[in-house]
Amino acid sequence: MIDRSLTDFLPVYDSTVSAAMRYACLDGGKRLRPVLLLAFVQLCGGEIEKAVPFAAALEMIHAYSLIHDDMPCMDDSPMRRGKPSVHAAYGEDMALLTGDALLNRAYEVILNPRLLADYSGESMIRAGSILARAAGLGQGDYPGMIGGQELDIQSEDKLINLDTLERLQQGKTAALIRAACQTGAVLGGGNEAQIAAAGQFGLSIGLCFQIVDDILDVTSSAEQMGKPVGSDGDHHKNTYPGFLGLEKAKELARQRTKTALDALSVFGEEAESLRFLAEELLIRKF
Amino acid sequence: MIDRSLTDFLPVYDSTVSAAMRYACLDGGKRLRPVLLLAFVQLCGGEIEKAVPFAAALEMIHAYSLIHDDMPCMDDSPMRRGKPSVHAAYGEDMALLTGDALLNRAYEVILNPRLLADYSGESMIRAGSILARAAGLGQGDYPGMIGGQELDIQSEDKLINLDTLERLQQGKTAALIRAACQTGAVLGGGNEAQIAAAGQFGLSIGLCFQIVDDILDVTSSAEQMGKPVGSDGDHHKNTYPGFLGLEKAKELARQRTKTALDALSVFGEEAESLRFLAEELLIRKF
Repeated sequence: MIDRSLTDFLPVYDSTVSAAMRYACLDGGKRLRPVLLLAFVQLCGGEIEKAVPFAAALEMIHAYSLIHDDMPCMDDSPMRRGKPSVHAAYGEDMALLTGDALLNRAYEVILNPRLLADYSGESMIRAGSILARAAGLGQGDYPGMIGGQELDIQSEDKLINLDTLERLQQGKTAALIRAACQTGAVLGGGNEAQIAAAGQFGLSIGLCFQIVDDILDVTSSAEQMGKPVGSDGDHHKNTYPGFLGLEKAKELARQRTKTALDALSVFGEEAESLRFLAEELLIRKF
Repeated sequence: MIDRSLTDFLPVYDSTVSAAMRYACLDGGKRLRPVLLLAFVQLCGGEIEKAVPFAAALEMIHAYSLIHDDMPCMDDSPMRRGKPSVHAAYGEDMALLTGDALLNRAYEVILNPRLLADYSGESMIRAGSILARAAGLGQGDYPGMIGGQELDIQSEDKLINLDTLERLQQGKTAALIRAACQTGAVLGGGNEAQIAAAGQFGLSIGLCFQIVDDILDVTSSAEQMGKPVGSDGDHHKNTYPGFLGLEKAKELARQRTKTALDALSVFGEEAESLRFLAEELLIRKF
C-alpha cells in the first residue's frame, strides 16, 4: 500500500530529478516509519487507507534525509541499500535538488486540500506540524533530524559525553520515529493520552535502535576479528558500549524496550503486533 | 514587520546551523515576496498582521533556495548580497543543513496550530499548498523552483530555445512570486476571481523581471565596454535579447507589465501602490 502510494505521488516526468526521486524512494527500504504511522492509525480506530498519503510523505522525508546525508560534503557515502547513492548515480547537483524536491513534495502531499474530504483542517495541521518539527533543527533537549545531524558532524573526531550522544541519537533517529507514531495517533483520532503514549513508544524504540546497532557493531567485530571486546577503543569511543560497557548497554536497551512496551498498555490487547515488532527489532538481536 | 517576525522565528540556539539561518535571512534582501504577499492580503480586505508568519515562511523558502543554489555543486557562488555566501562562511556541510533547516522551518511556521486562532484550517492548507507546489519540482508547463533550477543546470553550455527559456524562468523566479501573490489573496479572504488575478499579476511580473535583468545586462555591458550590443553573442545566447533582439525584448517586457497591470483591474483604485511598484520595478529601468 505504501509503495503503491509512493509510486503515485512520484510520477515520471521528463526530468532527471523526477527519475532520481523514484530511484531513492521506490526500491528498497524497510518502510518502518510509515508502517508505524499506519499501525497507530489502526490502534486508535482510524482507517489506514485514508492515512496512506501521510505515510508516503513521511517516507519521502526519510529518503530526502538519506540523500543529503550521503553527499560528499556530509558522510560521503557512495552506496546506499546495496546500490549507488543518489549523488553517485546522478551527480551532486541533481542529488541536492532531489533531496530538496522530496522534502517539498512531502509537504505538498501533506498540505493537499483534497485530504480535507477525510480529515479536518485541524487534524491535518497538527499532524503536519508534528512531522515538520521532527524533521527540522529542533532545539535544546529536543533536537530534530537536522539538529541530530549537526551534532553528529560536530562530534566527529572528538570525544563527546553520554548526554550529547543521547541528544544526537534522539535527533538523528528517534525524532522522526516518534513523530511517525504520534502522527498516526492524531490521524487515527486518538485521545491525548494515546497520542502521548504513541510518542513515548516511538521515542523509546528510536533511542533503542541505536544502542542495539552499537552493540551489534561491537559483538560482530569481536567475533569476526577474534579480538576482545573494547580493544578497538578509538573506533568505538562515541558509542553506548564505549560509554557504558557492553553489559550495561544491553541492560539500557532492555530498559528502553520495556518503556516502549509499557507505553502500549493504554491500547490493551490490540497492540499485540506492535509489542511483537518492538521485541523482534530490539531485544532478540543480541 | 517582516524582519521582526523573521527574528522571532529564527531564535539563537547553541548551534552553527541556527546562526547560519539568521546569517542568511536577517541581513539584506529586498523582501519582495513577503511584501507582495502582504499587499494582496490588504487588497483583499484581510489583516496584514495576521498574515506575517506566512510572509516570513515565504522569505525562508526564498533564502533556502539561494543557499543551495550558491553551493559549489550548483552555481558555486562565493558571495551573496555583498557578503560571503553561507557555504563560504560556514562550510558546505553546514550550508546544506542550513538550507534544509530553513525549508523545514518555513513549513513548521505555516503548519503552526496556533494560527488556527486567525485562520480556518482550510485557508491555511490552501495557502500552504500553493507555496509547496511553487517551491517543488512542478511539472510540464508549470515547473516549480526546483524544476526551474534543474532546467537551468541542464541548459548550461547548450543552446536552448525561447520556449525552454520561458519555462526555466517561470520555475526559477516567477513560480514563487506568483505563489506569494496568490497566497496573500487566499489569506486576505479574496474571492476566486481575485485569487486568479493575483496569480496572473505575480506570474507576469515574475517573468518580466528576468527580461529586464537580461536587457540591463546587455545595455550596461554595451555602455561599459564600448561594444555594440549583441557582439558578445556567446555569453548572451540563452537570454531574451539573445533570442529576440534588444528592441523586441523591451517590447515583451512592456507587454508583460501591461498584463500585470490589467490583472489588477479587479481590485480597483486600491491597487494603486502595486501598480506603482510594477512600473518602478519593470519599465522605468530601461
